[in-house]
Amino acid sequence: MGKNITEKIVSNHLREGEMEKGNEIGLDIDQVLSQDTTGTMVWLQFEALGIDEQKTELAGQYCDHQTYQFDFKNTDDHRFLKSAAQKYGAQYSRPGNGICHQVHKENFAQPGKTLLGADSHTQTQGGLGMLSIGAGGLDIATVMGGSPYYIDMPEVVNVRLEGELPEWATAKDVILKLLQDLTVKGGVGKVFEYTGSGIDSLTVPERCTIANMGTELGATSSVFPSDDETKDYLRRLGREEDFAPLEADDDAEYDDEVVVNLDELVPLVACPSMPDNVVPVTEVEGEDVEQVIVGSCTNGAYEDIKAFAGALDNNDVHEDVHSIVAPASKQAAEQLAREGEVADMMDSGVNWSESTCGACIGIGHVPGSDSVSLRTFNRNFEGRSGIEDDDVYLCSPEVAAAASVEGEIVDPRDYADKRDVPAPGIVLPDGFGGQDPDLLDPADAPDDVELDKGPNVGSVPLGDELEDVVEGETILKVGDDITTDHIIPATSDILKYRSNIDKLSEFTLSRVDENFADRAEEKGGGFIVGGENYGQGSSREHAALCPMYLGIEGVVAKSFARIHKANLLNFGLLPLTFVNDEDYEKIDEGDDLHLGNVMEAVDTEQETTQLTLVNETTGDEIPVELDASAREREYVVAGGKLNHTKQNA
Amino acid sequence: MGKNITEKIVSNHLREGEMEKGNEIGLDIDQVLSQDTTGTMVWLQFEALGIDEQKTELAGQYCDHQTYQFDFKNTDDHRFLKSAAQKYGAQYSRPGNGICHQVHKENFAQPGKTLLGADSHTQTQGGLGMLSIGAGGLDIATVMGGSPYYIDMPEVVNVRLEGELPEWATAKDVILKLLQDLTVKGGVGKVFEYTGSGIDSLTVPERCTIANMGTELGATSSVFPSDDETKDYLRRLGREEDFAPLEADDDAEYDDEVVVNLDELVPLVACPSMPDNVVPVTEVEGEDVEQVIVGSCTNGAYEDIKAFAGALDNNDVHEDVHSIVAPASKQAAEQLAREGEVADMMDSGVNWSESTCGACIGIGHVPGSDSVSLRTFNRNFEGRSGIEDDDVYLCSPEVAAAASVEGEIVDPRDYADKRDVPAPGIVLPDGFGGQDPDLLDPADAPDDVELDKGPNVGSVPLGDELEDVVEGETILKVGDDITTDHIIPATSDILKYRSNIDKLSEFTLSRVDENFADRAEEKGGGFIVGGENYGQGSSREHAALCPMYLGIEGVVAKSFARIHKANLLNFGLLPLTFVNDEDYEKIDEGDDLHLGNVMEAVDTEQETTQLTLVNETTGDEIPVELDASAREREYVVAGGKLNHTKQNA
Repeated sequence: MGKNITEKIVSNHLREGEMEKGNEIGLDIDQVLSQDTTGTMVWLQFEALGIDEQKTELAGQYCDHQTYQFDFKNTDDHRFLKSAAQKYGAQYSRPGNGICHQVHKENFAQPGKTLLGADSHTQTQGGLGMLSIGAGGLDIATVMGGSPYYIDMPEVVNVRLEGELPEWATAKDVILKLLQDLTVKGGVGKVFEYTGSGIDSLTVPERCTIANMGTELGATSSVFPSDDETKDYLRRLGREEDFAPLEADDDAEYDDEVVVNLDELVPLVACPSMPDNVVPVTEVEGEDVEQVIVGSCTNGAYEDIKAFAGALDNNDVHEDVHSIVAPASKQAAEQLAREGEVADMMDSGVNWSESTCGACIGIGHVPGSDSVSLRTFNRNFEGRSGIEDDDVYLCSPEVAAAASVEGEIVDPRDYADKRDVPAPGIVLPDGFGGQDPDLLDPADAPDDVELDKGPNVGSVPLGDELEDVVEGETILKVGDDITTDHIIPATSDILKYRSNIDKLSEFTLSRVDENFADRAEEKGGGFIVGGENYGQGSSREHAALCPMYLGIEGVVAKSFARIHKANLLNFGLLPLTFVNDEDYEKIDEGDDLHLGNVMEAVDTEQETTQLTLVNETTGDEIPVELDASAREREYVVAGGKLNHTKQNA
Repeated sequence: MGKNITEKIVSNHLREGEMEKGNEIGLDIDQVLSQDTTGTMVWLQFEALGIDEQKTELAGQYCDHQTYQFDFKNTDDHRFLKSAAQKYGAQYSRPGNGICHQVHKENFAQPGKTLLGADSHTQTQGGLGMLSIGAGGLDIATVMGGSPYYIDMPEVVNVRLEGELPEWATAKDVILKLLQDLTVKGGVGKVFEYTGSGIDSLTVPERCTIANMGTELGATSSVFPSDDETKDYLRRLGREEDFAPLEADDDAEYDDEVVVNLDELVPLVACPSMPDNVVPVTEVEGEDVEQVIVGSCTNGAYEDIKAFAGALDNNDVHEDVHSIVAPASKQAAEQLAREGEVADMMDSGVNWSESTCGACIGIGHVPGSDSVSLRTFNRNFEGRSGIEDDDVYLCSPEVAAAASVEGEIVDPRDYADKRDVPAPGIVLPDGFGGQDPDLLDPADAPDDVELDKGPNVGSVPLGDELEDVVEGETILKVGDDITTDHIIPATSDILKYRSNIDKLSEFTLSRVDENFADRAEEKGGGFIVGGENYGQGSSREHAALCPMYLGIEGVVAKSFARIHKANLLNFGLLPLTFVNDEDYEKIDEGDDLHLGNVMEAVDTEQETTQLTLVNETTGDEIPVELDASAREREYVVAGGKLNHTKQNA
C-alpha cells in the first residue's frame, strides 16, 4: 500500500510505536523552534536537564512577541534567550529580525523533515513539505534533550485543490473557505494534507499562508508536497541544497477527503469574533474601517506586503484610516525597501512598523472603542486585540489595501474597477538580502557562555525521585471545577513572571486562598484535595510546575481534567482519584496524609493501580487510584519528565 | 538702541506691557502646537471656551507619544484629537507621521513668528529664527481663544559661536558643551540667542538640535538668526515663501554673553543621569553598550539618521547590541528609504521603527537591567527610560553608530581610523516627498464635525462666576508640604485618565484621604485647609482643575507653592493665606466656613486684600489674605481663566 506524505515523514522518523491511527508514537524531531514568551521556560527546563548541548539538527530561538520591550523584564528575557541559545547550541534571532515562522521559513525549513515548535502556528512550515507541529515548552526541552516527541498518530485528510485562483482571490481565501466549511473544530486530531492540480499554481509563501491557519481548524499539522515550486523558492533564498522532493504515492490512502475548487473562490473575510465566521466580502461591504494592519505569520511575508503595496497602487490611505504594515521579517522589509515599496507606501500614508507579532497578540495598536479593525492575521477571538467587544475582521492583503484607500470594507474587484488598479501578480524576487547580523550562530566556546539571567529570570527546579512513603499535610481542600486559571492566573500582572517560577509560585491558587503558597512553603509541601474536574481549562504547564516547586506531592480528587493530569505526571506529582467519591468528605484541610508502598503501586506497566491513603489525623484508610501509562509512571518515579529525560540522555 | 532678535520678535508681537526685563508682557502668538499626551486637555479646555474656531494663524495637533497605542484609551485619544482639530481649525498629524517638533519644522515653522507649544521642547523651532516657547495646556487653549500669552520678559544671553566644527564633532556636541559649562539650571528665565560667524557653517537641522536642548538648560527659549542657510532649507522643503530674514542689529545689547569655539569641540557624551553630566567620549570609552537608539526631536531628523547611516558605513551591528532607529518623521523616513539608506541599515542589523517619541519617554525599548543604553535623545534623568537605576548616555548619531558597531563606547575618530570610515558630510536633499495623507487640514464644514469622545474622554467643566458670599464645609484639613503628587498622583494607573476629569477627580487627594472626592461631592464642595507650602511639586494643572470639578471654592493655607497658587487662580479657586498662622488651629475638618463681601475684596487692582473668614461652627472670625495680580483677580471673578477668555473672545 502506498503512503501519503504524512505517513512518509512519520515512518522516516518513527522511533517508538506503530504507525496506526490513534496509536501513540514517538517521533524523532529534526528541528525545534521557540519564541520569546514560550522560550524562556523552554530553556530554563533545558537548563534543568543538565545537558551541555541541544541534540536536534537545528534549534531556533526567536524574539518576536515582546519586541516593543515595554518593561525591562522583556529586554532581560531577550538577553537570557540569547545567552541560552549561544550556550546550548541554538540559532538566536534578535528582536526586530522577525516572526519565528517567517524567519524559520527563510532560513531553515526543509522538506521531509520534522519540526516541533513552542508556538501554535508552527505548522506554517508545512508549506514546504515539512511535518511541523506546535507543542508545549517541556516537549521542546525534552526533545532537545534527546527524547522523541510522543503523539497519537493523527488521521490524515486529503484536501484536494482543483483549478486556479481567479484574480483578487488569494491563498488566504482558500483557508478562510476551509474554515467556513469545516469550522474551528474541524481539524482536531488531524493532519491536513494538500494534493491536487491546484497546488501547482500556488507559490510556497501562499502554501505557507494556508498551512499556517490549519491551526485555526484545530489541526495537528498541515502539509504540502515538495515540488519544483518548492525547489525554485529555496533557490531564491539561496538554499537550493535544502530541497528534497516529496509527494504522496499514487495509491496513498486517506482517512477523509475535502475538495476546494479554487476557480470558484471569491474574496472572503472572517467576521468578528471567530476565524470560521466567514462570509464573502460583498456581504459586509460598506462597513466603516478605522484601522488596517498587514502582517503576522499568516500574511506578513515579502509576497504579502508586495501584494498589499500593489493593490494600494500609490493611492492615498483614507483620512479616517490608520493603516499599518508590520513586516514578518527584516529580510522581507529590506527587500521591500530596496524595491522602493517602503518609500511608496509611506508616501501613501502607511505606517511602517518594526517586525513584530505585536498587534496580533494585543501588544500595541489596540483598536479604538466601538470601531472596526481589518487585519491580515489568523485570529480574531473576542478581546484578543486588547479591547473587549472588539470588531476585528480577518482578510487578505488585497482586501486590506482596498479598505485602506476607501475607508470601508469593499470588494477589491470593485475597488480595482473604480480606481483602475491591476491585480497584483506577485513575482518572487530572484534573491533576498542576507540577515546575518540578526541571526547569531551558537558560541564557538559554549562553556564560556554564562546564562544571563536578569532579576526576573529564575530557574526551573527538578522534582525529587519518588520514595516509597509519601506523606504530608492537606494544604488546601477545594471543591469542583477548579481551573488552571485558579491555579496560575493569566492576568498581565502575573503573566510577566512566567520565566520566574520562584516569583510565579507565590500566586499559586491565590484566587482560591491567598495564603496557599505561604502555607505550602511553611509546611514543606503536602497534598491538595479536590473535587470533580480538577485542573480544567488551558494547557499551561505552570499549573503543575508551581505546585511542584512549592513541594506539593500529589493531588487527590474525584476526577481530573485530561491535560492537567498529564502535566501533573510530567512534573512528577501524583494525580490520585478517590475510589469512592464519598471519601472526599473524610479529609479536611490540615489533616496529615500518608501513602505507603508507593513504589510498588507506581513502578509498574499496569494502567490502573490502587494505593491506600491513610488520614493520620482521623485514622481513616482511604482507597485511591493512579491511572497512568507506563511512560507516565516512569516520569513519576524519576521525579518528572525532565529528570526522566536527563537520566536517559 | 539696536535690538537683538528676541527683542525684535517680542516688539512685533507685544500686545500688553512694556518690553523690560522681568516685566510681565502679553505676547501675540502666531502658531501653537500640541502633542497627544497634552493635547486632549488643551482641546477639552478649548471646547469649554465655547469658541467655534481657534484664532491663531496655525495650530498643529500631533500624535507622537502614545503611537504604539497599547491601550484603546490611546487610540481613542488620537481619534478625539483628530475630531477636535478638524472641528476647531487645526492641522492634524496622524500617529506615525512623526514627532511634533520635526513635523512642525518641516511644514510650518516660520522665521520671525511666535510659537507656543504644549511640549517642553517647543523651542526647537528657534533653529529657524522663530520665538518658540513651551507652556501648559490652558495657555495653549486660551491663546487659541484669542488671549495673549503672558510671560515675564526674559533675559537674553548672547551665545557667540566662533570657528567651525571639526570632523566627528557635531551640533549635539555644541549643546552638550553648553550644558557642561552652564548646567541644567543655567538658562532659567533666559533666552539663548545664537550669534557669531560659527553659525554660517551650521545647517538648519543642526541649529534645531542646539535649540531643542535649550530646554535642558532650563531656558525659556533659544533662537538663531534667519539667514541664507534658512532660506535654502525652506526652499528644499518647498516653502521658500515662508522665509524672512532676521538678525540682531549691530548695536544690539544682551544681558550676558557666552562664547563657544567650535574648532575646539570634541565628541562628547552626557553620562547618567543628567544632561549636564558631560564628558569627552574618550573618558568613558570601553563601556559596554547593549542598546543604541537614534531618534527623538533632538536627533531624529533626516540629516541625523543620514549621519548615523554614513558613520555606520555598512558595518554590521555588534552581536551584543540592539540598535534601533526611530525616525522623527515619516517624511524623513521616506526620503531615507528612497535613497536606499533604510535597506542598508536593515542589512547592517539596525531595527527600523515607526516614527515615535517612544523610548525617549520610557514607552518601549526599556533597557535591560544593569545595562548601558546610548541614545541620541535629550534627557537621561534616572528612571526616565522605564527602569530604575538605568545607565543612559546621550550622544550624537555619529557616536551612536560607532558604538553600534563596536559594542562599546568608542571615540568615533578612532572608530573611523580603524575601519576606514569617512566622516559623514551631510548634503541636504534637494527636496522631500510630501506627507499630505498624514497631515489633515481642518474640515471644510467644521459644524458638521462631532467631537469623537471615547468612553475615557470627558469634558472640562467651567467654574462658576464669583459670588459675594462664599461658604461651605471644611472637606479636608491637611498639614505642611502637600505636593501636587498628593493632590493628583502621576502613577500610570491614574495617568491614563488625564483626559477624563470626571474619572481623574475620583483620585483627588486620595493619597491623603481616600474618601475626599466622595465627601466633596456629597457636600457640594467647600474648602480645603492646608499648612505651609501647599501644592509644591509639579506644574500639573489637574491639581487645581480636579478640586474645582469637585466643587472646592478655595484653599486656606499658611502658604502656597508659586505655580500651584497660580493654577488655583487660573481655575477660579481662592488661594487664601492666614494673616496669623496660629489661626490654622481654629478650623477643624467638618467646620462650616463663611466668607462675606467677597466681590469687594477680590475685584480690585490692589495686589493684596484682606477678607474675614467666619468659622460658623465655632464662631471664630479669622482674617485671611488674597495675594493676586489684577489679571489673576479677573480670572477669579470670571470663574477661571477659561471663562475669562471666553468672555473676552
